Amino acid sequence: MTDVHDLTRALQRDNGSKIVLAVADGLGGLPQQPGGKTELETANTPNLDELARRSSLGASIPVLPGITPGSGPGHLGLFGYDPLKYQIGRGVLEALGIDFELGPDDVAIRGNYCTIDGDGLITDRRAGRIGSDIGTALCEKLDKIEIPGVEVFVRPVKEYRLVIVFRGPGLGGHINDTDPQKTGVAPLKPVGRDDASQKTAEICEEFLRQAAEVLKDDAPANLLTMRGIAKKPDIPTFQEVYGVRAAAIAVYPMYRGLARLVSMDVLDAGTTLDEQMDRLESAWNDYDFFFVHYKYTDSTGEDGDFEAKVARTEDFDAAIPRMTALNPDVLIVTGDHSTPSKMRAHSWHPVPTLLAAENCRFDRSESFGEEECARGGLGQFEAKHLMLLALAHAGRLEKFGA
Amino acid sequence: MTDVHDLTRALQRDNGSKIVLAVADGLGGLPQQPGGKTELETANTPNLDELARRSSLGASIPVLPGITPGSGPGHLGLFGYDPLKYQIGRGVLEALGIDFELGPDDVAIRGNYCTIDGDGLITDRRAGRIGSDIGTALCEKLDKIEIPGVEVFVRPVKEYRLVIVFRGPGLGGHINDTDPQKTGVAPLKPVGRDDASQKTAEICEEFLRQAAEVLKDDAPANLLTMRGIAKKPDIPTFQEVYGVRAAAIAVYPMYRGLARLVSMDVLDAGTTLDEQMDRLESAWNDYDFFFVHYKYTDSTGEDGDFEAKVARTEDFDAAIPRMTALNPDVLIVTGDHSTPSKMRAHSWHPVPTLLAAENCRFDRSESFGEEECARGGLGQFEAKHLMLLALAHAGRLEKFGA
Repeated sequence: MTDVHDLTRALQRDNGSKIVLAVADGLGGLPQQPGGKTELETANTPNLDELARRSSLGASIPVLPGITPGSGPGHLGLFGYDPLKYQIGRGVLEALGIDFELGPDDVAIRGNYCTIDGDGLITDRRAGRIGSDIGTALCEKLDKIEIPGVEVFVRPVKEYRLVIVFRGPGLGGHINDTDPQKTGVAPLKPVGRDDASQKTAEICEEFLRQAAEVLKDDAPANLLTMRGIAKKPDIPTFQEVYGVRAAAIAVYPMYRGLARLVSMDVLDAGTTLDEQMDRLESAWNDYDFFFVHYKYTDSTGEDGDFEAKVARTEDFDAAIPRMTALNPDVLIVTGDHSTPSKMRAHSWHPVPTLLAAENCRFDRSESFGEEECARGGLGQFEAKHLMLLALAHAGRLEKFGA
Repeated sequence: MTDVHDLTRALQRDNGSKIVLAVADGLGGLPQQPGGKTELETANTPNLDELARRSSLGASIPVLPGITPGSGPGHLGLFGYDPLKYQIGRGVLEALGIDFELGPDDVAIRGNYCTIDGDGLITDRRAGRIGSDIGTALCEKLDKIEIPGVEVFVRPVKEYRLVIVFRGPGLGGHINDTDPQKTGVAPLKPVGRDDASQKTAEICEEFLRQAAEVLKDDAPANLLTMRGIAKKPDIPTFQEVYGVRAAAIAVYPMYRGLARLVSMDVLDAGTTLDEQMDRLESAWNDYDFFFVHYKYTDSTGEDGDFEAKVARTEDFDAAIPRMTALNPDVLIVTGDHSTPSKMRAHSWHPVPTLLAAENCRFDRSESFGEEECARGGLGQFEAKHLMLLALAHAGRLEKFGA
């Protein structure tokens, strides 16, 4: 099948228009009881509702019906990259999220400090959730490990989490996790699925052997496990496939990393939505496309806190006027997946989506919510097609064919 | 593109939940007059309507918009197998439907006894619809035919219908039907589309030559035609791709055969819907997934009998409480295609579909019918994705990606 990016490469045109993609992470929800309202429908969202009345609404399917995405595939879909084609390992995401510049020869690994007993069995998979200060100090020690043939980088992420990167020629990225996902057993041995990956697996083993020695007196963090061992996929840049200068305004490392993966400029976004809006305003003249990421609709859903998700949705709504005041040619509000507080987890349910633009086809929606979106003018659509709609409504796509 | 089954293989998990897929064959219909109600909308279906009020509704597209499926593609889609990828010959379906165990070297053929006159021209394509007793006796005679290099099996199906299987190395399955689909002409000569199939075609010719001799005094069944000459496709098992133990509770051979094709256990289902419900109850603890097939919504549609289809739909509705009483985690009611009595045939129209589960997103539907389904929360979806929705709502799919 024709790749959508072959189309956008051929049809893109720069008319100076501006697009804002505002992603409320985990936006979609469920009612607590049959017949009830979802979090978004419960929230008092006058700004989103006003916007809905001059938008096309729709329901975005992140990957395929029934498939619950992680944050990686969820965002790649929104960025217009087929999440089944571009599969990204957790280690790569973690590395990107701490501003580590991954090269094509790098293998990235998410590490978790853990506690092992005298028999080498894991007693705590998160090393008592040590503080970031301790984790950082331990990473500095591990960063000194030397392995012939590769460069070794060890960087802290947060608390018990770290990133390990091996840089060297001929490494593969298909290795099992060493985290056994339970306590009372030893870490698993890393094994590569091909020759290049087996070479990496042996480097992992050597690293873990040295790490055990380095950390032996650092209980509860006296070892680490490895997860998501992977190389960066070969992924075309946002600028190349769409012809827009794109900026990411995201607070959390994961989402900054995802934006960096498609070569958006990752801007300093502060720590609050207000600071993100400050940045959006100050960068307005420098870019064509803005990815704004808001985390708390997801984290409250994962906490199973319906009321908190409602409240955080209302906070998000309050930021909308600062976006509309910039008069973007296209403003999209959506999520990367649903996170119903009833389920305390990501889910497969289609995500409420709103697209406001001069030439959108209005659908007489009265408010922004799951039910209105399910019946909206955009219908149900695959998330990977949202960028086509964004570019089209921005006047940034030429006619296809004569 | 990634095969959906690669996803389900990777993401499947067994949480002990139970899924019922209740297929009312040819369920979708049309009103007799513009503005009228369909068969399903006309029927008094209090149980389905009650279920609809706590379900997500949608409209299933069997293959692609505008494509009218036979029973084979219709059911493969519902089972989550792309009907464009897995194409199944009629002969194979017939053989599976009479419990004939097809192997990888087998070519299966649907036969019809016919009547030919002294000039070798067909005067009756169904040999006066001879009874099953006669058909069975004739098959016993034909089963004695010997052809060098292959084993020959001849089995009765019903009345004038039979199955012929050739078993041997190097046979192909791409041969035209010999049934000319009209009377007054001779049967067509079988021709293979490739070398292996031409070898099979020559075996068909030899078989037909000997059959003419065997049957020469058995008018009206003094010959047979061949249709749907085919080999069994290489198709992965339901258990392997979804991780569920699956049982089929179907009365008609064709549907039992389709279930067997994906390696469901085919249970003794009796002859009535009540007996099927008895079996569903008695097998409840032994399986995770139940395919229940109801034929009469299709056969009445094919008869062009609107009122009979309404009545048979009401019979189907009456069985719903016995399914819901088992408290399945997911209950799906759908059809393999539409069979509008107005058209007296299968059609391409999307099929009313209902999915009831704890975490379905309710869509304020009031009843189960074509119009409600067209506006339902599942939207229009490809039938091949229904299994993803079933597994997701049953909690049987892990998250995709980090």
